[in-house]
Amino acid sequence: SEDDAKLTTGGEFTSIVVVGATGDLSHRKIFPALFSLFVEKHFPKNYAVVGYARSSMTLDQFKEKSCKRLACRAKAGAACESDREDFVKNIHYFSGQYDSLASFQALDNFLAELERGFSPVATHNRLFYFSIPPSVFLATARGIAHAAMARTGWTRVIIEKPFGKDSESSLELSTGLARLFPEEAIYRIDHYLGKEVVQNLMVLRFANLIFEPLWNRQSVASVTITFKEELGVEGRGGYFDEYGIIRDVMQNHLLQIMALIAMEPPVSLDAEDVRDEKVKVLRSCLPIRNDDLVVGQYVGDGTAQRPGYREDATVPKDSITPTYAAAVVRVNNRRWEGVPFFLVCGKAMDARLAEIRIQFQQVPGFLFRDTPGGMNIARNELVIRVQPDEAIFMSVVNKVPGLKTRLESKELDLEYKARFSAADIPDAYERLILDVLHGDKSLFIRSDELEAAWDIFTPALHHLEKHHVRPHPYVWGSRGPAEADALAARHNVRPTGASAARL
Amino acid sequence: SEDDAKLTTGGEFTSIVVVGATGDLSHRKIFPALFSLFVEKHFPKNYAVVGYARSSMTLDQFKEKSCKRLACRAKAGAACESDREDFVKNIHYFSGQYDSLASFQALDNFLAELERGFSPVATHNRLFYFSIPPSVFLATARGIAHAAMARTGWTRVIIEKPFGKDSESSLELSTGLARLFPEEAIYRIDHYLGKEVVQNLMVLRFANLIFEPLWNRQSVASVTITFKEELGVEGRGGYFDEYGIIRDVMQNHLLQIMALIAMEPPVSLDAEDVRDEKVKVLRSCLPIRNDDLVVGQYVGDGTAQRPGYREDATVPKDSITPTYAAAVVRVNNRRWEGVPFFLVCGKAMDARLAEIRIQFQQVPGFLFRDTPGGMNIARNELVIRVQPDEAIFMSVVNKVPGLKTRLESKELDLEYKARFSAADIPDAYERLILDVLHGDKSLFIRSDELEAAWDIFTPALHHLEKHHVRPHPYVWGSRGPAEADALAARHNVRPTGASAARL
Amino acid sequence: SEDDAKLTTGGEFTSIVVVGATGDLSHRKIFPALFSLFVEKHFPKNYAVVGYARSSMTLDQFKEKSCKRLACRAKAGAACESDREDFVKNIHYFSGQYDSLASFQALDNFLAELERGFSPVATHNRLFYFSIPPSVFLATARGIAHAAMARTGWTRVIIEKPFGKDSESSLELSTGLARLFPEEAIYRIDHYLGKEVVQNLMVLRFANLIFEPLWNRQSVASVTITFKEELGVEGRGGYFDEYGIIRDVMQNHLLQIMALIAMEPPVSLDAEDVRDEKVKVLRSCLPIRNDDLVVGQYVGDGTAQRPGYREDATVPKDSITPTYAAAVVRVNNRRWEGVPFFLVCGKAMDARLAEIRIQFQQVPGFLFRDTPGGMNIARNELVIRVQPDEAIFMSVVNKVPGLKTRLESKELDLEYKARFSAADIPDAYERLILDVLHGDKSLFIRSDELEAAWDIFTPALHHLEKHHVRPHPYVWGSRGPAEADALAARHNVRPTGASAARL
Amino acid sequence: SEDDAKLTTGGEFTSIVVVGATGDLSHRKIFPALFSLFVEKHFPKNYAVVGYARSSMTLDQFKEKSCKRLACRAKAGAACESDREDFVKNIHYFSGQYDSLASFQALDNFLAELERGFSPVATHNRLFYFSIPPSVFLATARGIAHAAMARTGWTRVIIEKPFGKDSESSLELSTGLARLFPEEAIYRIDHYLGKEVVQNLMVLRFANLIFEPLWNRQSVASVTITFKEELGVEGRGGYFDEYGIIRDVMQNHLLQIMALIAMEPPVSLDAEDVRDEKVKVLRSCLPIRNDDLVVGQYVGDGTAQRPGYREDATVPKDSITPTYAAAVVRVNNRRWEGVPFFLVCGKAMDARLAEIRIQFQQVPGFLFRDTPGGMNIARNELVIRVQPDEAIFMSVVNKVPGLKTRLESKELDLEYKARFSAADIPDAYERLILDVLHGDKSLFIRSDELEAAWDIFTPALHHLEKHHVRPHPYVWGSRGPAEADALAARHNVRPTGASAARL
Repeated sequence: SEDDAKLTTGGEFTSIVVVGATGDLSHRKIFPALFSLFVEKHFPKNYAVVGYARSSMTLDQFKEKSCKRLACRAKAGAACESDREDFVKNIHYFSGQYDSLASFQALDNFLAELERGFSPVATHNRLFYFSIPPSVFLATARGIAHAAMARTGWTRVIIEKPFGKDSESSLELSTGLARLFPEEAIYRIDHYLGKEVVQNLMVLRFANLIFEPLWNRQSVASVTITFKEELGVEGRGGYFDEYGIIRDVMQNHLLQIMALIAMEPPVSLDAEDVRDEKVKVLRSCLPIRNDDLVVGQYVGDGTAQRPGYREDATVPKDSITPTYAAAVVRVNNRRWEGVPFFLVCGKAMDARLAEIRIQFQQVPGFLFRDTPGGMNIARNELVIRVQPDEAIFMSVVNKVPGLKTRLESKELDLEYKARFSAADIPDAYERLILDVLHGDKSLFIRSDELEAAWDIFTPALHHLEKHHVRPHPYVWGSRGPAEADALAARHNVRPTGASAARL
Repeated sequence: SEDDAKLTTGGEFTSIVVVGATGDLSHRKIFPALFSLFVEKHFPKNYAVVGYARSSMTLDQFKEKSCKRLACRAKAGAACESDREDFVKNIHYFSGQYDSLASFQALDNFLAELERGFSPVATHNRLFYFSIPPSVFLATARGIAHAAMARTGWTRVIIEKPFGKDSESSLELSTGLARLFPEEAIYRIDHYLGKEVVQNLMVLRFANLIFEPLWNRQSVASVTITFKEELGVEGRGGYFDEYGIIRDVMQNHLLQIMALIAMEPPVSLDAEDVRDEKVKVLRSCLPIRNDDLVVGQYVGDGTAQRPGYREDATVPKDSITPTYAAAVVRVNNRRWEGVPFFLVCGKAMDARLAEIRIQFQQVPGFLFRDTPGGMNIARNELVIRVQPDEAIFMSVVNKVPGLKTRLESKELDLEYKARFSAADIPDAYERLILDVLHGDKSLFIRSDELEAAWDIFTPALHHLEKHHVRPHPYVWGSRGPAEADALAARHNVRPTGASAARL
Repeated sequence: SEDDAKLTTGGEFTSIVVVGATGDLSHRKIFPALFSLFVEKHFPKNYAVVGYARSSMTLDQFKEKSCKRLACRAKAGAACESDREDFVKNIHYFSGQYDSLASFQALDNFLAELERGFSPVATHNRLFYFSIPPSVFLATARGIAHAAMARTGWTRVIIEKPFGKDSESSLELSTGLARLFPEEAIYRIDHYLGKEVVQNLMVLRFANLIFEPLWNRQSVASVTITFKEELGVEGRGGYFDEYGIIRDVMQNHLLQIMALIAMEPPVSLDAEDVRDEKVKVLRSCLPIRNDDLVVGQYVGDGTAQRPGYREDATVPKDSITPTYAAAVVRVNNRRWEGVPFFLVCGKAMDARLAEIRIQFQQVPGFLFRDTPGGMNIARNELVIRVQPDEAIFMSVVNKVPGLKTRLESKELDLEYKARFSAADIPDAYERLILDVLHGDKSLFIRSDELEAAWDIFTPALHHLEKHHVRPHPYVWGSRGPAEADALAARHNVRPTGASAARL
Repeated sequence: SEDDAKLTTGGEFTSIVVVGATGDLSHRKIFPALFSLFVEKHFPKNYAVVGYARSSMTLDQFKEKSCKRLACRAKAGAACESDREDFVKNIHYFSGQYDSLASFQALDNFLAELERGFSPVATHNRLFYFSIPPSVFLATARGIAHAAMARTGWTRVIIEKPFGKDSESSLELSTGLARLFPEEAIYRIDHYLGKEVVQNLMVLRFANLIFEPLWNRQSVASVTITFKEELGVEGRGGYFDEYGIIRDVMQNHLLQIMALIAMEPPVSLDAEDVRDEKVKVLRSCLPIRNDDLVVGQYVGDGTAQRPGYREDATVPKDSITPTYAAAVVRVNNRRWEGVPFFLVCGKAMDARLAEIRIQFQQVPGFLFRDTPGGMNIARNELVIRVQPDEAIFMSVVNKVPGLKTRLESKELDLEYKARFSAADIPDAYERLILDVLHGDKSLFIRSDELEAAWDIFTPALHHLEKHHVRPHPYVWGSRGPAEADALAARHNVRPTGASAARL
């Protein structure tokens, strides 16, 4: 694109400042993604990558730490190594406080010098990636806004969840940011939206004729969006215990994916048009009812390796924070009224799995009632899997070849699995950072979207907290509490066939 | 089933008489199918297989001829050989004329003796398979009806196309047969209906929720049913020249398949209910318009191996018999009005191919107009392939993984290909003969169906013949005459992607 | 039509024999209908109307009795009187037994003489209208079949319900008739099918584009077919007590109307095509479940004029015959699965009413929840009323004009009411007899249809009788037993708005 | 509502300033609407109505002029007269220039005095109604913005078309206003949106289940929106000749109505949600193609009373300004692609008519082909008429009662006609002014909506002007130029039945 051209060949200089650069996310995801864009030639031609953190350390120490995971998706050893050397040359480190204006003034000078070093008259852009705890969000934002804004090019800030803890605190954060930056400068990231299959959702829905006639309450029985981890908190319970699984996963990742599934066709693929539709469908959702929500908390399985949540040293002994939740979201519009959107997420479960499962209704007036296999035949399902591998498949009923009529349901691969190697599929962070560089906001969350998302969950969250609702215990490595199955059954979500094990 | 039980274990004795047993069809298809049913234990326990033909030959000569192609689909050598020996024991040969009552009286005695040999008091069924030219159909039928009917069990006759040459002659044949046998004794075979994928059509349509909302004029742009052979007449032009490709292939095989695609859901899977719906949809078809029909005749490609049709020794030099035809059938009902059913068949063409191609409409209000690959992206298609291999696939548009949005259309295997070995898939004749043994008529053509089928083609056929319409020449090994492409284009049938080469 | 032409101008002579001519139906309905056809010039040009009954009476006595209700729909006094005189001239009376072959031989002679009197060489048709009790049906049929068939033209017999009492007895009657007459000679009348609005059902459904997209389980919540009478048995309980309301009204009139509502579009308007579809949909119906059936029996309201059913002199004191029934029929096909067809009929109720009420679903994602009148607004309904007047109307929600948004639901007249005078609307019997004269069987019940209809009700009827189920009492003049309301509620049939009073 | 309560009973004082108060619109529409709201008790309790214009005149002269048309819709003489006296008491007149800051400062003083007179501490709102030529729009706006804004309450301005002459000039005006007022203070009026039936459109579409399944390209063949006047310019050609019929009527009134017909269901009935959807559908419209536009100009009919457009004294002799236009708008989205929206408007035509005519497709597989009246039967239509009377009707095909099957199509009144008296139906201006008082913007045009609307018409307008396209002549009192019929025919818009005369 034009933008691309300007960034990669033109006379611009872009500083990418990773605030909180010594943290886990930084070296695990952000630096590898930056390097990958560099290797794939999607990176600014003229740039500086600046690590910013509180620790004092030498540049070499910082490079050692932050660059240890740099790898090439599709290039062989030597070529990759050569790229790595080139990339690392332009990495810098700057130590400063998050709540100190003076620190940001110093950073500004540091950046200005780099910019002048390139060219005093070029356009100088600055991108700040917030890889920091929520408690210092606003302070950092203030520092940048008051002392470190780009003088000639754009300034953009990337922030990640948590965006508050409920409608009120989220609004407070949004208002605080809005006083410092215009909305178009703020990129609220949800890295799930950067996944290839999530991207493909738009293509599947809107570039194929065959799905739209099925995409409604007449054909769909339920939509289940699942995110399960095999790991527990394992010594990192501090942050988690404050937020819990609903705020950590459900209210953002799962709801964002749900919005993409449920939204109306946008008027165009422009970022604002897509986001308009996402907001619309979120606003059509009713707040979660208390009886549509099941929360759980894992207990140990008796082994030392898998202790219960409250046995973790970083977790209060009387914690009632949910590590598992299952909720039914009701979309109260013409397309979806009556179709349960069943959101499920949990830690310390039986599998690592993230997927969307659209279960279609049973065929009315089913002709094969009396055919062997007929009555128990699974319903058609369309499954978009994000983890452990990205895949899209559809279950279709066929006749088993042979002289008898016998039915079977098979999950048929629509895409990806076995067709593309890992090398072909960029990491979610790559795509998202690239989009920020290009100013494309399709995959980022707008403030009104955030507000609508919180409105769905805030009453239920307040209810849990006000009434000290105890989560249902479930054993580490299990499918979660049985109450969730009862909730699913009440909403006619059928764990048939392969999904029985997975739900 | 109960029937099955009675036949395979019970006290019945069944004679299977292949009339015209020395012909090509007989040893190529019928005997192998009988043997296969025997191997698979779907055969009557007590039976005789009787070859009937004019030639004088010894039983050994006959066995030599008719059994040379017997093979086991799924059994290894020795086991198969042992089955073969068992099967061959009960083969008999009887020489007689087709138009001689005396011959059939003699056959009756011969059969009666075999039956008595089994048990004088058992039920004795007789199945007659007509593997004979149309000219002796009625004479043979008369012979059987007057002299060789089963005395205690059922008598059934299997007949194959041609069922007349137009509405009038077909009616004459039907009336003639109706005077001799009740409708329920007559099995008009169309072996295409015995193909596995054709069988699966019913399952796909009616056991899946996802196809019905698409199965109509709102979603389908066109349906193309193609049957192409690479071979010409090659010295067997006598019969063919009299009938031509429309009568030989289009009016029966293609139209039968079309009826299964286009029919309404039947009230049940019972044979009569399915046939009722097939008749209904055929009656909804308008007669082919002259300008909706393109006929062709192949000419040589300049080599000695591939002479033109009229250069074949068995073909009149001035023949105007079509070896290729393309026609648009219009189904004038609520579901299909405006959707062209494009039937194409030919000899001496570029490929051996039999398939059904349902082409869906372009996405209205297409959002990806400006996306690379967007405007030329193929429409969704559902393809049911019968030859060279049986397969069902669907083309779906996906995003190519990567940082850019790029669309591609892939044909995705819904079934069969690479999932089942040839051993799993019974030959069409197996299924059909088994159905006759069980008295299941789902896959056979009823007389009113035949009448409706002829009504669609008779006016066009009469037009061709009355006006001595010259077929368009096309070179052996080509895609057929260009005029057919023009016809397709006029009806918005798009040869996109893979189908471009195939159409 | 051609037929019409032949009958009214041609060289044919038609005898119309009313068997049981002294009965109530005969002078109340049959003779007036014959006369009306005569006045409207839809009558055979050459004809004799022959009354046949057991009573000895003079021709004048007979004319006096049978012609007292002759009236002209659209003609003024003198012209009508003149027509009447003409018509009456060709009325004859013949006294005979129903079970005596000799009587029918005598009738044959009598008819032959009339026929010869017209012309010895013309075509002579004979139409027999059975206006007799079921006990003499078969005897009469035998008499006609063996002794009084037309020699040169057609013979047709019209029979009216009851056609048996359950599947078995109905089959027995059908088989008995089939031995005597070919199916095409038998006209099983259901006079409800002759009503104008019932006729119009076909036009509404199939000549308008706008109803078909609504005519299915996606849009329709329920279909209620109601037939209520204000009268009780009033001294004529003999026949009724043997049959009960289910056999008298529900299994025939209501089910026939239901079939027209629920059937698929026929391939053409030909009688057999329409009847094929009716049979199909009846075969898709599941047998009535015992818990889907409520039966009632009226008790007196305390006045002498309105005694209870069992207080009627003609009714056994311990009768458990239902005088009211409400049943849910489930149509188990693609279009209707899950939509209750609620059939209601009763005697001694609060109104005289026959109507079909198609209740549409509530708008999903209803936007007007908070608008005054919004939540309680009635659902859309399409109502086809047969009695007390013929009318079709649709309820539509509109904004009440004014500065506020306020919703109201109005029943809007689609047809008939106030547009046509009674003179325009022929009696059902006129149409049906005319159709018999023309050999048009669209509105008559085929034997397989009858069989399918009985299959729906027989198990429930046998259950009632085997277990001596006591009907729920309801007071003369009431809406029927409250249990029926509970049944309706269980199936989401909503008595909103005007229908609340009517249900 | 709450707002209502505050305005009518509370402590607020509202000044309504009609700028351009001596003009035609003012005394014909604005003052009567204000009075009507006063009578109906929808008016602010404490208010001043201030006329502002350039002319010097006494208050009595002004009252005489502006109040001469005040009438009560639903009140009898004396009561009305008493209301009128009350209302007139609070009318004031203030003379000033439109482009003079000093004038507006003086007005501010005048208003402040009135406000203080009520209460120095109350909330004081000011509403400015721009009833002035476009040339002084911005000057007036500047005057108000700089000198006459409300100090404690809200300030709102109502402006009416023309909003520019094309995309560029409209943008200029929008930008100019945006510098002076926030978007929420600007009410762009399109009085067509205030019509009762237009209001009812939302109710019809979204409060009834039965229309949505029909509201799409599968069912709708075309939508025609017509606005025809019987009058020519009649001496008022100055303004008109500069703008022409496309800018005067089509680009605003017709397009606004089209947007309400074509838009997707909004997420709620809130003003912004409705306007979001209107903008979306306008953005989905392709710019009018030159060959999809027919323009005409009327010529005299030979009488002195009806001179040609260019014979009008106020019109240039060589004017090529269209007085008639017919255009096809293409909505390029999933719902509507392929459905022509045919907009027609003209002066000096055969009738005064404003209506929306949704023409449904022909029934596919039409069964009544051979029925008398079958083939020529009109398609179903839904007609919403705005002028000469407000009405909604649907054409439905019925069987004509009688013994023959004969079809007829009738237009059936769904609403209004004959049900409500004129007294019930408020004038469009009443509703709109009331909405401004309440701050409800549903019926007003947002700036992005305006932009989208201009984008549809600007290329065609520029084409007409750049190439001096001569409009087709048509005679005063005719149906417009024949070329428009050809355009309609090309797009399959059928002038059947009643619409033939009307189109």
